[in-house]
This record gives sequence, structure tokens and C-alpha cells, in this order.
Amino acid sequence: MEVNKFTISEWLKKLQSQICNALENADELSKFISEEWERDEGGGGKTNIISNGNVIEKGGVLYSAVYGKTPDFLKTEKQHTIIGAETSDTEFYATGISIVIHPKSPMVPIIHMNVRYFEMSNGTKWLGGGIDLTPHYINTKDASFFHTELKKVCDKHNLNYYQKFKNWADDYFFIKHRSETRGIGGIFFDRLTSDETMTFSQNLNFWKDIGSAFAPIYVELIQRNKQKHYTEAQKQWQLLRRGRYVEFNLIYDKGTKFGLETNGRVESILMSLPSNASWQYNFQPKAASEEFHTLSLLKKGINWL
Amino acid sequence: MEVNKFTISEWLKKLQSQICNALENADELSKFISEEWERDEGGGGKTNIISNGNVIEKGGVLYSAVYGKTPDFLKTEKQHTIIGAETSDTEFYATGISIVIHPKSPMVPIIHMNVRYFEMSNGTKWLGGGIDLTPHYINTKDASFFHTELKKVCDKHNLNYYQKFKNWADDYFFIKHRSETRGIGGIFFDRLTSDETMTFSQNLNFWKDIGSAFAPIYVELIQRNKQKHYTEAQKQWQLLRRGRYVEFNLIYDKGTKFGLETNGRVESILMSLPSNASWQYNFQPKAASEEFHTLSLLKKGINWL
Repeated sequence: MEVNKFTISEWLKKLQSQICNALENADELSKFISEEWERDEGGGGKTNIISNGNVIEKGGVLYSAVYGKTPDFLKTEKQHTIIGAETSDTEFYATGISIVIHPKSPMVPIIHMNVRYFEMSNGTKWLGGGIDLTPHYINTKDASFFHTELKKVCDKHNLNYYQKFKNWADDYFFIKHRSETRGIGGIFFDRLTSDETMTFSQNLNFWKDIGSAFAPIYVELIQRNKQKHYTEAQKQWQLLRRGRYVEFNLIYDKGTKFGLETNGRVESILMSLPSNASWQYNFQPKAASEEFHTLSLLKKGINWL
Repeated sequence: MEVNKFTISEWLKKLQSQICNALENADELSKFISEEWERDEGGGGKTNIISNGNVIEKGGVLYSAVYGKTPDFLKTEKQHTIIGAETSDTEFYATGISIVIHPKSPMVPIIHMNVRYFEMSNGTKWLGGGIDLTPHYINTKDASFFHTELKKVCDKHNLNYYQKFKNWADDYFFIKHRSETRGIGGIFFDRLTSDETMTFSQNLNFWKDIGSAFAPIYVELIQRNKQKHYTEAQKQWQLLRRGRYVEFNLIYDKGTKFGLETNGRVESILMSLPSNASWQYNFQPKAASEEFHTLSLLKKGINWL
């Protein structure tokens, strides 16, 4: 089959629907509510939101494909380095899926996934993406499972990718002002195109496999943890960790920033925020507590395999 | 008495203690917990935090006076325009008070106040400040009282100040991506020094009067509203409005940004965040509801007097 922006978008649309089915099956209660929207300047998207489930408290699986004349804001030097717009009179096409799932139980981790494709009429095109896991309580077995699964997908395509993209995730999902990683990382990559070792088509296959790996990995993590008992104090800790998630997304996340600065659809962009979050002045977990243990592992450079 | 950075800091310290006393009296239950901190490069502060009160759920009254060699980050062009550092080899001194109070009841408004003084060894010096009110439910009588009191303070010193600084607050306390003001505004000003109409000393008196007006104004608003009954649904609306407060502070607030980017004391900077906040996908209040009414008034340019 020919590979072009339209077939890529079609593939993403199918992926969105597969992922939503898998999450609904795992949740066993709530269903996604779907909202289609159009962008005045070209394109649009489909925002699928689930809430108040057995497992999922709030989550979104968002598809979009937007295009048109490259807007002025992409012409500044700063934006060039973000999207690679070398000329100012081209057209762009951007399509992708973004997912954030906030589970009800503090024993089930928050997950985020994004796969995106970008091209310009001057021939520039690239792939980006990432998956990262934010456990409220770090379970080293689950962390190892998560990273091992991602490594398997990477290794199938390029033996350098896992370590390279794992380091990139450590650097990207970092809450600088707290000196904390957002969670246990995962992989992050951007501007994948082609080079001496990988053709664009090979990178596209890698990228598709990452997208397809999301549902089985997260459903397994749900099954492992959804029945676990938790206390009111553990729920409170979850709210504090969600507060950190809000800090990361509103202060550092490039997609959020880019979306808000460019008049994106606010409700779709901010679906990544939890249904509730908490802040407590100078909260310090007790020494040797589970919370203390988790905090001690929110560092870059840990080998989770 | 001679006016210099030390006497200004001394005045601010006394103001902090007066405001905390007034708030404790109004709360009738909780007391401030005080933490002094030092800055490695020079100076420090006193962070007073109150929580779980009768009236106040979470609030901070923060004093700081920091000084030293002008750090590198103040030497970039962008920062020049923020702090007015025209030369790179000077020393700076910055002192101020910042307050954010999140009340328990959705019937009592959130309030914020900041007064700050900045000088450099090259002779540059200026005053800045602001007070703004964020009611969860806008009560036009209270809004009128709030703005009238601020106008009285302004008018005592300069008949142009209220309108000028009210417009500035409308522009500053604006959540761009929502096209909503944070609340009903108030006044905001920056870089007050001296000009053909006002000496520095006259502006200093104005600035002090703003600082001194905070406690009587907010205590009055507490007394008017603290006994009002509220429902669970109104509490839920309060959490959504707090979510907007978080969005403003983490995305737009210059003080927060500046503090986090310059390795400020994180727990002091983020004391402005509420103890909890909520986000709901695409929440729309019912037509003609109290919530709808409040949203319709979160606009720039309203005359509240």
C-alpha cells in the first residue's frame, strides 16, 4: 500500500478505535464519548473521552489531522527549530494520536502515549512519539515489564533505539523545579526521518509498532493492579502526584504549550489534566515509607529492565 | 525617617505580621506557621502558611528580601525588559510581600496581593504591586465594594491611577486560552518610579497604602460571606474555578515563572496553588445558572464601581 499522509491518518484513526475498544474492555464499565471537531483553517479531529469508570477515572484518546498554510507563528526562528519549517510559503500537514489515562486507583499507573506525523509541502517530513508511565507507587516489577516491552518493540527495528529514546524520555519528562522525573519514563523521540541506517519506511514501521504496543502493555498493567486494596492516605498521595502531573503538563509539556499558544482546541489539549489534584505546602513523606521509596526513584538514568 | 531598601524591607516585615494577625483573627481557628529561609547568594525570606482554618483552607503570606550580584539570567535582553537591568556588573536588591488566600467556602472569594520593591546599584529603582479578587461566585455588591475601596486608595494619591491600574489588572490577570479573566481584577502596576506628576516618595506612599488596605478589605469580604450556606455542587464549582487559578498561575503568572526559572524556593512560589482543584472535560454550566452568570462576568473592561 502506498504510504502518504492520508494513509498514515487512516491508520491512526483505526488505531484510535482499537485502543478505545481495548480500554473499554479493560474498564468493564464506562464507554468513550466521542466528539468530532473541525479546524477553521483546515482539518480537525476526534476527541474520545472516558470518565468515571471501574478502572479509569478520566482519560482521553485523541486523534487529529490538521493542515493548511503554514501559520505565521511557525515562521519565527524559535518555531523553526520545533517543526523544521525552513521556508515560509509552504503548507503543512500534522496528524497524530495523544492519550492520557488517569486511573481511579493509586495502585494503577497513569499512562501517556503520543504518536505524530508531520510534513510540509517543501518535502520535510518526520515522525515523533513517546510512551511514558507515571506510577503513583513505583513497583519495580511493573517498571521492568513496561521498559522490557518497549525495548522489545525498539529492538525489532533498531538496536540503538531503546537506550537512545529512553534517555530522551528521562530528559523530556522531567519536572525541573522539583528535580523529579514525572514517573519512570519510557521512550521519547522526535524528528525521525531517514538516515544511513534507517529508511523513512523502516522508521514508520517502528512508529506504528509503538502505537500498537500501547494497548496490550497498559491493559496488562491494569490487570496486574486494579484489584489491589488502597487506603485513604494512599488516595491522598495519588492526588499530590497528580498535582505534579499538572505542573509538568502546564509548565513544560511542549504539546500543551504549542496547542495553547496556537489557539488549539482547549478542551482537547487539557484533557490530560486529572479530574482532581492536590497541593500541600512542603509535604515530606515519612522516611522509609512507600511514598518515600517512590520519590527516591523519580530520577533520571535508572535502568528499569 | 530616611527611605532606603532597609527601611522598606522593615516596613514590609511589619506589614506581613499585621496581615497575618488580621487573618488569624478573621479565621478564628488556624494560626500561621512560619518558616524562615536563606538564599545562598544573599538574603532570604519568611514564609507564613495557614491551613485548615474555619475560613481559610490554604493561604500564604510571604515576605522576602534577596540581593547579591545580578545573576547572568538577568543580563539577557528579555530579562532587561523585565527588571530594567541596563548594565551587567551591578548588584540588585529585591524585597516584597506576596499573598494568596484560598478560602474553604465557595462563597468567600480567593484573593491575591503583591507589593514589591526593586533596586540596582546603578541607581535604578522601582515599585510594583497589585491586588486582585477571584470570587467563585461573582456578587456585584462585593465586587463594587472591592473596586471602590481600591479606587479610594488610588484617588488619595493620583486621580489617574485607579483606571490605569485597573485596566492593567484586566490585561494581566487574563487566562488567554480560555478567553476568561481570572476573576474580577483589581489593580496591577509595575516599574513605578518618579515622573513629572509623582515623586518616588509619593509613589512609595501610594504603594504602602495599597499594602495596608489588603487586610481591612479582605476581612470585610470574609465577614460578609463566611456564614453563607453552600451545596456540594457549589463546592464542586469552586474546585473547577480553582483549576482555572492553577492554569493561570502555572502558565501565565510572571512571578511564578520567574521564580521557577531562577531556582527560587519552590514551596514558597507554589504556595499560591489551592489544596485541591478539579478539571472536567468540556464542562458547561446550565443557562441562567449562578455559574453561568459568573462566567459571563469574567471579561475585561467591566466597570465594577
